[in-house]
Amino acid sequence: MSGGADSPSPSLDKQFEEFRSQIEESGSLREKIRAVVLEIESTSRFMHSGLLLVHQSRPVPEVLEKANAQIGELKGLYNRLAEIFRECPGQYYRYHGDWKSETQTVVSLLAFLHWLETGNLLLHTEAEEKLGLNSSEFGLDIEDYLIGVCFMSNEMPRFVVNQVTAGDYDCPRKVLKFLTDLHAAFRMLNLRNDFLRKKFDGMKYDLKRVEEVHYDVKIRGLAATGDSNGNQGVADGQS
Amino acid sequence: MSGGADSPSPSLDKQFEEFRSQIEESGSLREKIRAVVLEIESTSRFMHSGLLLVHQSRPVPEVLEKANAQIGELKGLYNRLAEIFRECPGQYYRYHGDWKSETQTVVSLLAFLHWLETGNLLLHTEAEEKLGLNSSEFGLDIEDYLIGVCFMSNEMPRFVVNQVTAGDYDCPRKVLKFLTDLHAAFRMLNLRNDFLRKKFDGMKYDLKRVEEVHYDVKIRGLAATGDSNGNQGVADGQS
Amino acid sequence: MSGGADSPSPSLDKQFEEFRSQIEESGSLREKIRAVVLEIESTSRFMHSGLLLVHQSRPVPEVLEKANAQIGELKGLYNRLAEIFRECPGQYYRYHGDWKSETQTVVSLLAFLHWLETGNLLLHTEAEEKLGLNSSEFGLDIEDYLIGVCFMSNEMPRFVVNQVTAGDYDCPRKVLKFLTDLHAAFRMLNLRNDFLRKKFDGMKYDLKRVEEVHYDVKIRGLAATGDSNGNQGVADGQS
Amino acid sequence: MSGGADSPSPSLDKQFEEFRSQIEESGSLREKIRAVVLEIESTSRFMHSGLLLVHQSRPVPEVLEKANAQIGELKGLYNRLAEIFRECPGQYYRYHGDWKSETQTVVSLLAFLHWLETGNLLLHTEAEEKLGLNSSEFGLDIEDYLIGVCFMSNEMPRFVVNQVTAGDYDCPRKVLKFLTDLHAAFRMLNLRNDFLRKKFDGMKYDLKRVEEVHYDVKIRGLAATGDSNGNQGVADGQS
Repeated sequence: MSGGADSPSPSLDKQFEEFRSQIEESGSLREKIRAVVLEIESTSRFMHSGLLLVHQSRPVPEVLEKANAQIGELKGLYNRLAEIFRECPGQYYRYHGDWKSETQTVVSLLAFLHWLETGNLLLHTEAEEKLGLNSSEFGLDIEDYLIGVCFMSNEMPRFVVNQVTAGDYDCPRKVLKFLTDLHAAFRMLNLRNDFLRKKFDGMKYDLKRVEEVHYDVKIRGLAATGDSNGNQGVADGQS
Repeated sequence: MSGGADSPSPSLDKQFEEFRSQIEESGSLREKIRAVVLEIESTSRFMHSGLLLVHQSRPVPEVLEKANAQIGELKGLYNRLAEIFRECPGQYYRYHGDWKSETQTVVSLLAFLHWLETGNLLLHTEAEEKLGLNSSEFGLDIEDYLIGVCFMSNEMPRFVVNQVTAGDYDCPRKVLKFLTDLHAAFRMLNLRNDFLRKKFDGMKYDLKRVEEVHYDVKIRGLAATGDSNGNQGVADGQS
Repeated sequence: MSGGADSPSPSLDKQFEEFRSQIEESGSLREKIRAVVLEIESTSRFMHSGLLLVHQSRPVPEVLEKANAQIGELKGLYNRLAEIFRECPGQYYRYHGDWKSETQTVVSLLAFLHWLETGNLLLHTEAEEKLGLNSSEFGLDIEDYLIGVCFMSNEMPRFVVNQVTAGDYDCPRKVLKFLTDLHAAFRMLNLRNDFLRKKFDGMKYDLKRVEEVHYDVKIRGLAATGDSNGNQGVADGQS
Repeated sequence: MSGGADSPSPSLDKQFEEFRSQIEESGSLREKIRAVVLEIESTSRFMHSGLLLVHQSRPVPEVLEKANAQIGELKGLYNRLAEIFRECPGQYYRYHGDWKSETQTVVSLLAFLHWLETGNLLLHTEAEEKLGLNSSEFGLDIEDYLIGVCFMSNEMPRFVVNQVTAGDYDCPRKVLKFLTDLHAAFRMLNLRNDFLRKKFDGMKYDLKRVEEVHYDVKIRGLAATGDSNGNQGVADGQS
């Protein structure tokens, strides 16, 4: 220890000066992310409100049209997020916690919308495409995608109940087929004991509830006897 | 929805098949990291045991020599960790949670050792050098470094108390100067309200405790009157 | 520091003397508020007990009449509260925590009563009118109003279940329409992540439960086929 | 309930539309407050860093000069806060929680600085004056002032210990007199069982610690025999 020196060493000062600027940079990056994420949250809340109308027997095409309009907005917002990260490569997962929850919600909405339109699961690549994401630089994390799909599954029992109430007795069969396949596909994954695993474990309750509704309809002789055919979305009977 | 198709869509299957392999890859990566981290943890625990002997007035050079030997081992382990990540660029922060806590401990040990030897703070670049880390590919996260330094600070009051007990009355003055400079440097950082901030807030209690010991020594007229001179480490008086 | 002066400075004494009187004033204000709030709490508990009888198929008009009588009492109590604040303008939010919880309960009761009578949501201005509140001096905080409405929503599933049990099969449809509109209106609000947000998030479980009851009634062919008409309240079928 | 009406009532829509704009207004107000508070926090951290140098026997006048420069900055920031509230009278306590903690810290720094300069307690009116606050429109809440004073008291034992270490044996007597008067003045207040009360309860530990240091100095015959005289600040002996 250098005797008599009253001021701290210049290398210490220099290091902390550098830290200060790095921490401030990181803080201002976080503020930028926060601003975009707030808008994503607001847009997806708006989109969600629109989508919820399918539970009330509103004409499906009208509902879908409005929701689709919001996808463009979301795409613009994710583009801004991607731009922010273009300047700091390799930092995606450093700040991932700042937007993952909102992104999971966005995926659940896109997937529900897509399912209403096509009767199929929105694939990971399709979700990325809709949001203008590019796996090689700023992609959609697989776990976020899968959690979003679980959230979508949570909406299914409610949708089936309301469709049957509105007189669409074929809906339970279609949803049951969809959820059963989805559940089986998930089961092949070797999930760690984390949030995704817990969400997936919950999916079996959705499946069970849809099975019960299907049973209610069948046992009362309300289910259609033949298969519906065609490639259209699930909500056909109503539009 | 394609009517009559009993099996799930091939694209769904294909996607989940890909997820399965990606999740397995990620899982096996985690296992590899875990194996190295367990060794880091074990080595640093061993090193810690050795360093603790300075509290018992063991001859410092002997203590330092043994601890220095472990640094080589740690360097080898961090080299293995860096190799694992060489194959998956941009994933550093994805798995950061799997090794950060052990690395913070390692930093605290290296910093304490370095301070015993030189009386100076181990700089971030020096820590990276000792562990063979390279900022451009697999570096030492700044927050991990700073938290490690806070942990080191937590050891100081105990060290000072034991040194005074062993008759080294100049130690409190040296440590006080060191901690005061360190605390002042930290204060310039605009820390978020997180773990690092909490750890730093605790540093003032270390400082206060050392001030109290310094006070005890001074008021009893035990403190050396002159400044110690020379560039050697803090533990000179004892070696 | 004036040497030798043993007594504290007169300005210090004077300041704390003023604080003492201000803190005592504030304390006595709080006691006055507390006395009124205790009466509000007691009156609303009494009113709640009366309203709960609708779950037991008591004749609705009788239930409503008794509950309406208590509104007059509440109005008198809020008038006393308003008077207390007339003497200390700008302090509404300073003591807001002392009465907000009880006021939220009052709103939930008024809103439930109003809905039983009219089938419509009690508006904020109508709630203020019933309680004799005046927005410009002592009004009903919007968040308190909204939280009260959420509390009312929590009562709905139970009411629907009991009405169906008592043979009113049209009730689920009416309540569902009401709650769906209410939920949609709430969704447009950009709520912060606080108590109100949490209460609103819970509203979807009320909605879902009512949908399930509606489904049960429909699938068993118990629901009325035609729409009920007229502007009367929800509980018509029973009165 | 009006039969057949599919859309919610216009008055419901209108009400929630108004709520939406009010909640958004309130949210943007909060964002504005947040921006100023972040700057207050940063400025006071900077000021605190400077003031801490008195613990290290730095020449007091130099320390005070630097700290005083920051008061001007704080004054500007509180002026911005006051301006924000000029547009929404009566809302001071509605958002008080958003800045009170930072303001308590500011008061503790101002009070410590003032005490170093004059040996007296910074009065509430003096604090308002320094920050350019005006009780009639945007004042300093009394509880915030008192809590800030408690925080200042918490710094005293450390200051006394370090002054004695640096050879100023008269400091404990001065501080003891100051703290004893302050504690006595506080004791006259009839505090509720809240945060301020808890902070005040802690003040007795500061007092006790200073008494102990005073005892240490006295029993060793280190205390000056005569009274220091003059009206200057506490840190005279050192400057």
